[in-house]
Amino acid sequence: MPDTGMFTTAPMSNIFSPRAHVQRMLDFEAALARAEAAAGVIPPEAAEAIAAACRADLYVVDALYAQAVEAGTPAIPLVRMLTRQVAEPGGAFVHYGGTSQDAIDTALMLQMRDGLALLDADLLDICEACARLAEQHRDTLMPGRTLLQQALPITFGLKAARWLALMCRQVEALRACRDRSLALQFGGAAGTLAALGDSGMHVAELLAQDLDLPLPDLPWHAERDRVANLACALGVTAGAVSKVAGDIVLLAQTEVGEATEASAPGKGGSSALPQKRNPVDSMLALAASRLALGHVPVVLSAMQQEHERAAGAWQVEWEAIPNLFCYTAAAVSPLRSAVQGLQPNPERMRQNLDVSHGLLMSEALMMALAARVGRPEAQSIVQSAGERAVKENRALRDVALADEQILAHLSPEDIERALDPAHYLGSTGAFIDRALEAYRALSSGGEA
Amino acid sequence: MPDTGMFTTAPMSNIFSPRAHVQRMLDFEAALARAEAAAGVIPPEAAEAIAAACRADLYVVDALYAQAVEAGTPAIPLVRMLTRQVAEPGGAFVHYGGTSQDAIDTALMLQMRDGLALLDADLLDICEACARLAEQHRDTLMPGRTLLQQALPITFGLKAARWLALMCRQVEALRACRDRSLALQFGGAAGTLAALGDSGMHVAELLAQDLDLPLPDLPWHAERDRVANLACALGVTAGAVSKVAGDIVLLAQTEVGEATEASAPGKGGSSALPQKRNPVDSMLALAASRLALGHVPVVLSAMQQEHERAAGAWQVEWEAIPNLFCYTAAAVSPLRSAVQGLQPNPERMRQNLDVSHGLLMSEALMMALAARVGRPEAQSIVQSAGERAVKENRALRDVALADEQILAHLSPEDIERALDPAHYLGSTGAFIDRALEAYRALSSGGEA
Amino acid sequence: MPDTGMFTTAPMSNIFSPRAHVQRMLDFEAALARAEAAAGVIPPEAAEAIAAACRADLYVVDALYAQAVEAGTPAIPLVRMLTRQVAEPGGAFVHYGGTSQDAIDTALMLQMRDGLALLDADLLDICEACARLAEQHRDTLMPGRTLLQQALPITFGLKAARWLALMCRQVEALRACRDRSLALQFGGAAGTLAALGDSGMHVAELLAQDLDLPLPDLPWHAERDRVANLACALGVTAGAVSKVAGDIVLLAQTEVGEATEASAPGKGGSSALPQKRNPVDSMLALAASRLALGHVPVVLSAMQQEHERAAGAWQVEWEAIPNLFCYTAAAVSPLRSAVQGLQPNPERMRQNLDVSHGLLMSEALMMALAARVGRPEAQSIVQSAGERAVKENRALRDVALADEQILAHLSPEDIERALDPAHYLGSTGAFIDRALEAYRALSSGGEA
Amino acid sequence: MPDTGMFTTAPMSNIFSPRAHVQRMLDFEAALARAEAAAGVIPPEAAEAIAAACRADLYVVDALYAQAVEAGTPAIPLVRMLTRQVAEPGGAFVHYGGTSQDAIDTALMLQMRDGLALLDADLLDICEACARLAEQHRDTLMPGRTLLQQALPITFGLKAARWLALMCRQVEALRACRDRSLALQFGGAAGTLAALGDSGMHVAELLAQDLDLPLPDLPWHAERDRVANLACALGVTAGAVSKVAGDIVLLAQTEVGEATEASAPGKGGSSALPQKRNPVDSMLALAASRLALGHVPVVLSAMQQEHERAAGAWQVEWEAIPNLFCYTAAAVSPLRSAVQGLQPNPERMRQNLDVSHGLLMSEALMMALAARVGRPEAQSIVQSAGERAVKENRALRDVALADEQILAHLSPEDIERALDPAHYLGSTGAFIDRALEAYRALSSGGEA
Repeated sequence: MPDTGMFTTAPMSNIFSPRAHVQRMLDFEAALARAEAAAGVIPPEAAEAIAAACRADLYVVDALYAQAVEAGTPAIPLVRMLTRQVAEPGGAFVHYGGTSQDAIDTALMLQMRDGLALLDADLLDICEACARLAEQHRDTLMPGRTLLQQALPITFGLKAARWLALMCRQVEALRACRDRSLALQFGGAAGTLAALGDSGMHVAELLAQDLDLPLPDLPWHAERDRVANLACALGVTAGAVSKVAGDIVLLAQTEVGEATEASAPGKGGSSALPQKRNPVDSMLALAASRLALGHVPVVLSAMQQEHERAAGAWQVEWEAIPNLFCYTAAAVSPLRSAVQGLQPNPERMRQNLDVSHGLLMSEALMMALAARVGRPEAQSIVQSAGERAVKENRALRDVALADEQILAHLSPEDIERALDPAHYLGSTGAFIDRALEAYRALSSGGEA
Repeated sequence: MPDTGMFTTAPMSNIFSPRAHVQRMLDFEAALARAEAAAGVIPPEAAEAIAAACRADLYVVDALYAQAVEAGTPAIPLVRMLTRQVAEPGGAFVHYGGTSQDAIDTALMLQMRDGLALLDADLLDICEACARLAEQHRDTLMPGRTLLQQALPITFGLKAARWLALMCRQVEALRACRDRSLALQFGGAAGTLAALGDSGMHVAELLAQDLDLPLPDLPWHAERDRVANLACALGVTAGAVSKVAGDIVLLAQTEVGEATEASAPGKGGSSALPQKRNPVDSMLALAASRLALGHVPVVLSAMQQEHERAAGAWQVEWEAIPNLFCYTAAAVSPLRSAVQGLQPNPERMRQNLDVSHGLLMSEALMMALAARVGRPEAQSIVQSAGERAVKENRALRDVALADEQILAHLSPEDIERALDPAHYLGSTGAFIDRALEAYRALSSGGEA
Repeated sequence: MPDTGMFTTAPMSNIFSPRAHVQRMLDFEAALARAEAAAGVIPPEAAEAIAAACRADLYVVDALYAQAVEAGTPAIPLVRMLTRQVAEPGGAFVHYGGTSQDAIDTALMLQMRDGLALLDADLLDICEACARLAEQHRDTLMPGRTLLQQALPITFGLKAARWLALMCRQVEALRACRDRSLALQFGGAAGTLAALGDSGMHVAELLAQDLDLPLPDLPWHAERDRVANLACALGVTAGAVSKVAGDIVLLAQTEVGEATEASAPGKGGSSALPQKRNPVDSMLALAASRLALGHVPVVLSAMQQEHERAAGAWQVEWEAIPNLFCYTAAAVSPLRSAVQGLQPNPERMRQNLDVSHGLLMSEALMMALAARVGRPEAQSIVQSAGERAVKENRALRDVALADEQILAHLSPEDIERALDPAHYLGSTGAFIDRALEAYRALSSGGEA
Repeated sequence: MPDTGMFTTAPMSNIFSPRAHVQRMLDFEAALARAEAAAGVIPPEAAEAIAAACRADLYVVDALYAQAVEAGTPAIPLVRMLTRQVAEPGGAFVHYGGTSQDAIDTALMLQMRDGLALLDADLLDICEACARLAEQHRDTLMPGRTLLQQALPITFGLKAARWLALMCRQVEALRACRDRSLALQFGGAAGTLAALGDSGMHVAELLAQDLDLPLPDLPWHAERDRVANLACALGVTAGAVSKVAGDIVLLAQTEVGEATEASAPGKGGSSALPQKRNPVDSMLALAASRLALGHVPVVLSAMQQEHERAAGAWQVEWEAIPNLFCYTAAAVSPLRSAVQGLQPNPERMRQNLDVSHGLLMSEALMMALAARVGRPEAQSIVQSAGERAVKENRALRDVALADEQILAHLSPEDIERALDPAHYLGSTGAFIDRALEAYRALSSGGEA
C-alpha cells in the first residue's frame, strides 16, 4: 500500500519490510539446511554453502516479489534465486523437503516475535508514565463521568491507575499469547514431511531449536488459530489504546480543559486557527487503533482454509498481519508520547467539580441521609433538592443547608462534610495502590 | 505499510501514492487560488504565482509527511511549504479561507475519481471475457451444483452469463456511486467559509467548476456518507470478484477439472510439486478481495465523527480509502487475467455429468413422471429408483428402464428423453441471451 | 437470539418475525401457483387450493423451524406442510418448478421492502425535526469544534442543517437502493427453470408482476450483490445515525450543556445518582448503530458463494439481514425521539463562546489583519496576542485593544467588529437555506 | 432479534435468555446484600429479605425490559422492582453502594462462565470424535490437497489429527481465557465504591468469594479488555469450526465423495432434487461461524469507552456477547454432529489418488531421483515425464517405467516403490500419535 509513514513506526516497518521478509525466509532456509546437515540428511558442505547465501542483500527484492505475483508465492522465486546463488552441488539441497508455506509461515513467526518485543517495550513505557501520573495525582480531585455526565468525584490518580491496569494487562496478554502461539511451521508439501522419510521429526526438532521457536505437535498449514490468536491480542491492545487516547481527547476539550498533550513546535496547530492546540498524538493513536482492529476480522474470517493449504485465505495473512503490527505500533507509539507528555490541569479539574450547582455530590448527600431514612426516601429528598438548585440557580450546598427535610436528619456540619468531594472517595486510594503494586510486580519481572 | 506489490496494481498505487496525494492537494490549492481570483477575493497575480508553485516535484514528499505526523495533518506542512515557495506578496493568499480538510477531502475525491475510472476499465474487460465465454459455451453441458452437490445440468454459458451479469451490475453500481457521491469539500475552518465573508458560495461554485466536481449543498466535513458509499460500492465489487474467483478455484480442483487458468512460465507452479498447476490469479483475487472488504467496516464505524471535524475517525480514511482502492484493484486485476485466459474443459464437464449414476437427472425424470402422477408420488418413485441405482451401482437410466412403476407411466423413449441433460435446460438459453443483451447495452454506452 | 427488545423496534421485529417469514414464503408459493395457472402450467383449481392454504396461521411455526434445522432450510418443511394442507390433486402442484432458494430469497426481498418503508418514514421524521431546529436556530451562535477544540463560531442552525442534509441523503440512498436492488428470485433447482420447460420466462414475468417485484435478467442465487447493496445502504444509514447521536451526547456533557434530550418519568436517570440526566436515546442509537454496521462485513464476506448455491455463505443472510434491519431500526427510532425532543440551550452555547479568553475569534481577527499585512504576518501577530491572553488570563479582546502591532492596522471599532461572532459566520445562512431547500424538495416528493 | 432457533442452541439460549439475565443480576444483588451484611454494612435481616426476593420468577421480565429502554439500562427497573418486593426496612438496602454496571457486568460474567462450560463440553465431544477418526483411519490413504489441487498422499487419519489438534487448542484457549478474563465488577457509581466508605474492599472480597469470581485489582467499567479477550477467544473458536466444517463440505462434493454426513429422515434432502444428500450440519456450522466471528470487531471497536462509563459502546455488549455465545454454540453444535456421524469413504479416497495420471506421486519420484542427480535436474526430468503423461493420457507410472532418463538412475523396482503412496508418508504416523497424545493429556485432565 502507498505508505506515507503516518500510520506505522519506522522500527515496526523495518521488521515487516519486504527486505526483512526475504531475510526471514532466508533465515528459515539456512536453519533448515543446518538442521538437515546435523541430522545427516544433506551434506554439511551443502548446508554451509546454503547458509552463506542466505543474506537478503544478495538478492533483488523487487524482482523477487514481481515473480511472486506470477508464482502466487514469494517462496518459489526465493528458492529459485537461492538455488542459483549456491554453488553446485549445494544447490540441489536448497529447501530440501520443505514447502513454500514452511518458509513463509516460519518467517512470519520470526517477524511477529520481533514485533511483539517492540510493542512490549512501548507498552511498558506507557505503563511507567501512567504509574507516575497515578502516584503524582493520587489525591487530585476531578469529576468522574458516566455517559459523559458528571457522576461522582474521583481523583485523576484513579483514572491513571485504571489506564495503568489496562496497559499492564496488555503487556501480560501479549506475552502470554507469544508464549502460547508462536511456533515453527514445518511439514513439507502436504504436511507429512514425506520427502524426509524417517528423519522428519528429528529435523523438525533441530530446526525449532535453531530458530528458537516452539515445536508444535504437528504442522498447522491450514489451522490458523495461532495466527488468529496473535491477531486478536493485537486487536485488543489496539482497542485498549483507543480507550486511553479517547479519554485524553475528551479531557482536552476546550470546555473541559483538564489535560493537554505536550506542545512542541509544529505540533497540533491548525492551518487556519492560530489558537488551537489539538491532541494530535491521541488523535493519531485513535486512527491507527481503528485501522489495526479492523484487520482482526479479516484474519478470523480467513480461518476457513481448504484442506492442506488454502487458496486465498492463507495469502491474506501476508498483508493483514504486517498491516496489523504496523497499525498497532502506530497506535501504541503516539499514545506513549501523549501519556508521557500529558499535562493535567488540577485547577480546571477542581473547577469542573462545581459546575452544575454541585449536583455531583448528590449521591454523597443521599447516602448520608440514607443512613438515617433509608435509600428510597433519601433519594427522593435529594432529588427534589437538586431540582430546586437547578431551578433557582443555587448551589446544592446552599439549598441543602436551608432544607427542612434534610436538616431534620443531618446537622449543617454533616451536610458540609457530606458535600466535600475529598471525603467521598471510598476505596480510591486502595484501588490506586493495588494497580501500582501489580505494575511493580510486572515491571520488576523484567523483559519476559 | 510495507509494500511488496502483491496486493495492489501499479496504476492504482500511482493514483494513491504519497506524491500523487501531494499533487492532488496542490491541485486543490491552485484551483482555490484561481477561483478566488476570479471572484475578486485575491489578486490575479497571486493566483498565478500560487498555481505555478502547485507542482509536487517542487517539494520533498518525505519531509512533508514527517512533518504531517507532528502536525496531525499533511495539509499544514503543505501549506507552509507552498507559502514559502510562492514569491511574496502571493504567499499571503495561499490556502486563503480554506482549511486542511478542504484540501485533503477534495484531493481524496479526485483520487477516487481516477481510481473508479481504472476499476471501470478492468471490470469492462472482465465483462467482455465473460460475454465471450457465455456465447462460446452457450450449449456446453455441465453439472449445476448446489451446496457443492450436483443438482441439475446447466451449461457453462449460463455460469459465465451469471458472472457477466454480476460484473455488469458492478460497473453500473460504481458509476452510479461515482455520480452520486463524489463532491467538492469546501467549508473553511468550521464549515462556514467565514474567512470569505459574502463571497463563499461564489468561490465554491467556481472551485467546483474548476475541479469538475459536483458542488454539495453545504460542507460535509463530519458527515461521511459520501465516502462510506464509495467504500461500500468497492466492498461489494470485491465481494463480487470473490464469487467468480471462488468458482474458478472450485472448477480447477483436480477431481473436477472443468477449467484451468492459462499457464505461463513461472506461473502457478509449486516449490515442491512438479505436477501442480495452481489457480494463482483466482487465489490472489480471493486474497485481495478479503483485504478490500475488510476495510468497509473500518470506514463505516468511522462515521461517528465529532462535531465539525473528528479526532481520529476522519484520519482513518487517509489510510483506509487508499488501501481499499488498491486491494480492490488487486482483486479485479488478476480476475481479469483469470477470466481472459480461462480454459474450460467441456469433456470433463460432460464426464462429470455421469458421476454418481446419473442421479443428476433425477428431477427431470421426476418432472416427467409428475405430469402423470403428481409430484409427491413421482418424487417417491424416483427417490427409490435413485437409491437402488446407488445400492446396486447401476446407472439411473438402466434402473428406470427396468422399473415397473415408471414404465407404467412413461415409455422407454420418454425415459431416455427425460434423462438427456440437453433436453432439461429450461430457460438456460433465454437467460444467457438476456445477460448478453444487458451487457451489450452497457458496453455500447461507452465510457460513462 | 435472546431478545430483550432493547435493540429492535416492535414494527421491525414484526416484519422479520418467524411467523412473518413463513407468511412471506407462503406469499411466494401462492403467487407462483397463480402465475403458473395463468401460464397454463398448472390447473387453475390447483392454484386456488394452494393460494387458500397459504396463510401462516394454518401452520405451527416452531415445528417448521425445528424441521428446518434438520433439512438445512425452512422451505423444505414449509413445502411439505403446505402440500399436506392442500387437498389433492392440488398438492401435486405446490412449489411447482421452484426451489427452496426461490421462496426464501423472494420472501426476504418482500420483507426488506417493508423494512425499507419503515425506515423511510422514521428518517423523514428525523429530517423534519432537524429542519425545524435549523430554522429556529438559524442565528443561535455556538462554538464550532474541530478535533473537539473550539475553532470558530457557527450557529446551531448550521449544525442541524448538516444533520438534516445527512439524513436526507440517507432517505434518497435507501430509496435508490430499493429501486435498484430489490428483485424477484426465480430459477428452480439450478437456476435454469428446467422443470418449466419453455414456460419459464413467462411464469417468471407473471410472478414478478403478481408480487410487484422487478424481474431480473436471470436468477441470482449465488450472486448476492443485490443483498449486499441493501446491507451496505443500511450500514451507511446506521453510521449516519451515529454521527448525529454522537453529537448530541457530546453537546449534553455536563461541562458543555448545550443540549439535552427531553426528559420523561423513568427516563435517563441513574440507579445511584439522583442528579443525572443521561442522553439515553442517543446512547441506545449509538449502541444499535454499532450492532447494525457490524453486520455489513458479514454479508460482504458471504458473497463468495459456491457455484449455483452456497453451503453456508447464503444461509448467513437468513440471520444477518433481519438483524441488520432490526438494529438499524433500533438506531433510527431513538434518534428520532432524541432529535424530536431535543432541548438546545442557547444561553450555554453563547457562554461557551467566551470560554478560553475569546480565542475562538482569533481567526476572525487574523483575517481582518491579513487584509492589511498578509496572512503570515497576521497569523504571527495574532498568535502572540493569543498567547499573551492565555498567560495573563485576559480576554483576547482586551489584549488586542491594547496591542500596538494590531492597532497599527486596525481601529478599535475594526477590532470589536472582527471579534463579534455574529459577524464572522460567512456562508452559514446560505448553507442552511440550501439544506432546507433540498429537504423541502425531498419531502414534497411524498412517499417515493 | 427474531429468533427461529436455527442459529443458536437451546442450552445456550437458556443461559442468555432475558429471564436468565434477570436472574443473574438478582444473583449479584443477593450476593451483594450478603457480603454487605457480613461486612457489617447493612443489617443481616435486610440481606435475608433481599436474597429471598432475588428470584426471577417474582418479576415480569417483559415489563422490566420495556422500562429498561426508557431507563437506558435494565438494572434501574430491576432495582426498583426488587426494592418494591423487599419488605421494609430491607428495601432501603437493596443495591446498596452498587451501580447498574456492577450488576450488569457481573451478571454477564456469570453467564459467560456458564456459556464457556457448555462450549467446553461440546468441543471435547468433537475432539473425541476426531481422535476416533484419527485412530481408525491412521493408514487410510487419500490425496493431500493444496490450493485445492492434489499435492501428495496423506492419510485421513492425519487430516483428522489436525482437526483434533485444532480443537484441543480451542479447549485450552477457552479455558485459559476463562481463567484470565472472568472477574467481578464492583465499583459503585464512579468506580470508587464511595458509598461504602472504608468498607469497599472488604465487601468486594466477600462478594467475589460469594460469586466465585476472581477479584480484580480495581473496577474496570470502561476498560473492556476482559470482555474483548473472551469475544476474541470465541471468534477464534468459530473460525476453527469453519476450517473443519469447510473441509467436510469439500470432501462431500459429488466429484470427490470422500466423506458424507450421517443421514437421517428429513435431513439434508432437497425440495426439488430427490438424489441430493446435503452436508447440512457443516453448512449450518459454517453459517453460524461467520455470524459469530462477525461480532468480534463489534466488541473490539466498542473498547473506546468514555471516562468512567461509556454512552453506547458499553451497551453494545449486552447484545453482542449473547449473540456471540449463541452463534458460537450454533457453530460448534452441528460440527459435533457432523464429525460424530461422519462417514469416510476409503474407497473413493483411494480412487482419487489415481485421478490425473498418478501425477500426485511426482514429488516422490522426484525425491527418489534427486538423491541421485540433485533436485533441480530431478525436478526437470519428472516435470517432463508428467507433461508426457498428461499429453499422452497415460499413467505416470507407465511413462516413468519407459523413460530412459529415469531408468538411468532408478530401477523399475525403485520406481514402483517411489510411486506407492503408502511409502511416501514421511512423519504422518508420528504426527498422528503426537496429536492423540496431546488429546489424551487434555481429556484425562478432566473438566478444568
